[in-house]
Amino acid sequence: MVVKIGLLGLGTVGTGTAQILLDPSGRNPLLKDITIHRVGVRSPDKPRSVQFPPEVITSDLKAIVNDPDIDIVVELLGGLEPARSLILQAIAQKKHVVTANKAVIARYGDEIYNSANQAGVYVLLEAAVGGGIPIIKPLKQSLGANRITQIIGIINGTTNYILSEMTTAGADFSDVLAEAQRLGYAEADPTADVDGLDAADKIAILASLGFGGRVQREDVYCEGIRQVSAADIAYADKLGFVIKLLAIAKGSGGQESQTLELRVHPTLVPKDHPLASINGVYNAILVAGDPLGQVMFYGPGAGSGPTASAVVSDIMNIVAILKSSGQTPTLDPLLSCVHQHFCQITPIEGIKSRFYARFLTGDLPGVIGHLGMSFGNHQVSLESVVQIGFQGELAEIVVVTHNVGEGNFRAALAEIRTLEAIKSIPSILRVL
Amino acid sequence: MVVKIGLLGLGTVGTGTAQILLDPSGRNPLLKDITIHRVGVRSPDKPRSVQFPPEVITSDLKAIVNDPDIDIVVELLGGLEPARSLILQAIAQKKHVVTANKAVIARYGDEIYNSANQAGVYVLLEAAVGGGIPIIKPLKQSLGANRITQIIGIINGTTNYILSEMTTAGADFSDVLAEAQRLGYAEADPTADVDGLDAADKIAILASLGFGGRVQREDVYCEGIRQVSAADIAYADKLGFVIKLLAIAKGSGGQESQTLELRVHPTLVPKDHPLASINGVYNAILVAGDPLGQVMFYGPGAGSGPTASAVVSDIMNIVAILKSSGQTPTLDPLLSCVHQHFCQITPIEGIKSRFYARFLTGDLPGVIGHLGMSFGNHQVSLESVVQIGFQGELAEIVVVTHNVGEGNFRAALAEIRTLEAIKSIPSILRVL
Repeated sequence: MVVKIGLLGLGTVGTGTAQILLDPSGRNPLLKDITIHRVGVRSPDKPRSVQFPPEVITSDLKAIVNDPDIDIVVELLGGLEPARSLILQAIAQKKHVVTANKAVIARYGDEIYNSANQAGVYVLLEAAVGGGIPIIKPLKQSLGANRITQIIGIINGTTNYILSEMTTAGADFSDVLAEAQRLGYAEADPTADVDGLDAADKIAILASLGFGGRVQREDVYCEGIRQVSAADIAYADKLGFVIKLLAIAKGSGGQESQTLELRVHPTLVPKDHPLASINGVYNAILVAGDPLGQVMFYGPGAGSGPTASAVVSDIMNIVAILKSSGQTPTLDPLLSCVHQHFCQITPIEGIKSRFYARFLTGDLPGVIGHLGMSFGNHQVSLESVVQIGFQGELAEIVVVTHNVGEGNFRAALAEIRTLEAIKSIPSILRVL
Repeated sequence: MVVKIGLLGLGTVGTGTAQILLDPSGRNPLLKDITIHRVGVRSPDKPRSVQFPPEVITSDLKAIVNDPDIDIVVELLGGLEPARSLILQAIAQKKHVVTANKAVIARYGDEIYNSANQAGVYVLLEAAVGGGIPIIKPLKQSLGANRITQIIGIINGTTNYILSEMTTAGADFSDVLAEAQRLGYAEADPTADVDGLDAADKIAILASLGFGGRVQREDVYCEGIRQVSAADIAYADKLGFVIKLLAIAKGSGGQESQTLELRVHPTLVPKDHPLASINGVYNAILVAGDPLGQVMFYGPGAGSGPTASAVVSDIMNIVAILKSSGQTPTLDPLLSCVHQHFCQITPIEGIKSRFYARFLTGDLPGVIGHLGMSFGNHQVSLESVVQIGFQGELAEIVVVTHNVGEGNFRAALAEIRTLEAIKSIPSILRVL
């Protein structure tokens, strides 16, 4: 039995996927039973590094999802439309779908999985999070025996590259971003990466799998890294931390009946934490559960080869099921989406965390007392208050709090802003 | 449909497994469809931390593998016999098998998988390597799109704990071993761990999965850590390395037609290598492949909870297949053993690596020249020769070679042993 693939998109990941499928020797023998039946692209005449006969290539993407010969549609277009509509149409035609599209799954997963369950087809997305790192399937399968308590990831390579470079070179955000754009590690419009939106898409997907409920993408609290300065990185270093953009999902009671914390923000990570040493474009995802303890998955979070590796693993998974299932199989409950309800998400005001805040102040002798009073007025207990440097006439003071309610911390800051000695609050970051 | 488990063994891992299965809330909903039908133990009357009705417990292990009501036999006895015979009998009775027994699989995998394929049942062993770290299933499934080039693991927690403690405390092997035994991190008879036998069992299994061929356990070259001294750890540190017991499988061309290197030995690992920072009883496995690059899996390599998590994930996997497959399914080629041939293994003499050797010498002015000559005579090119300290009257010289053939290196050492100035060669280690 040969399984026929319809490939939508022949960009970086599409090309990598085609290269694996066209050159199966030395890989899992199952790959020899897969053929690329049609390839849909926007510009069929564009020169490409992988060659197909002219009759395989088409710009009519709808013809691919409707082609009765195709068993699996592999959507590697990216973006919301036409990707979403094509995925839904492929499902309606009872084709299995493999996608790397985190944006579509994070926003339309509910609609897509309901349709897929009704049609009795799989929608697999190993490539949507963590590039070549196997994380989706382990969360669905190997870790399912656990009550998952936390998923914490460095899941955006661009921002991790920028923060790593800022740390190594002591450079400021805008300079490193320009360099990253020159090297192709950041897009011309870097918004999705640097503002944390891409990481938010991905943690929405991971949380849904780990905590067994659907997640609304807009429930993910999200701060990017534009506000992180070279000064903060240097002060964090003195305090024993590195700054990373973390995506965090936390729950208390495992699957079903619980509320989740879901957030993406730059975070001070203790230097001896396993995530602290993940540098450059690499990704890592730490999963904690009971009785497992902690496991961490580390690897290349993007790029043609790694992402294609994940895409092809999903294709192989479906091919293996097609070859081994007998007549009238139903969907494998470990590979399909079995949960229907939406997770309750704790609003950011209700979350407790440690904070780092940097203040520019005049009138040094009095100001630490005033800061301490204002924090105390709002039950914000402090771990350290350090006068860490000067900027011209002004003193720089860095405060690290204990675990405190976000609401209390914000109320204290509002009071502190009214103090005459406080000239500005250049940065507020969270501490792991 | 409720799936019935026959559990063989109620030691640490058996108890952990029972605890998960008896308390499914908050875990994957599939666990609610699993019941522990019978439990086989050596001493039915022994008090236990998990309770079963008396009719569930038996000391007649054969009755469990022959019980027609049981769907899955979970073998957690450890040791070679009766584990091997019970696994084979369960297979003959067409029961699926889940095991944590690396010793049996590494030695009798060929026999067991042939029987399982003939009977049409699964033998899953996620818990046999890396405790709670998902590594077996990712190697079978998610990474299969790649041509795997290397698998390098820290896969024995006891030796990693001992080496970590020796590094932190500057203590010698025997003192740390005694402490590890006191803490329960090492067995009363530590042979299987400290002589590398356990790690060799595990790398034989990983190599077989990653490189797609069967592996003879006796083909794994194996050195333990008894010869590693506090002095070597200190010198390695000065040279920029930490010493780890690594299990290494290397191939060149992916699956099928290739020869493999397979070895377990203490190794100098550069401090900036991802495996260098894996300390204590933690395990980590690095897998490199094309086009993936490198991924690393990190977590608790042993213990009741983590190992039970892996056992239960295998049980869930089989339950999911039983629930979703239609009539007359065949074995899923990504979960069963599809390869029949044995891998060709390069004998250790044919392997190239970098070496670290420590010499105790007299007559310092002449000896470095003599050492250099002897190595040169056998085409062993040197990276560094450092006189690193004194022991009484004798000088200590540490040599690090470039990548050289094991045979050449040993021939050079044989010549060096005849030099009058060389009093002894206390350690020879490999360098990653």
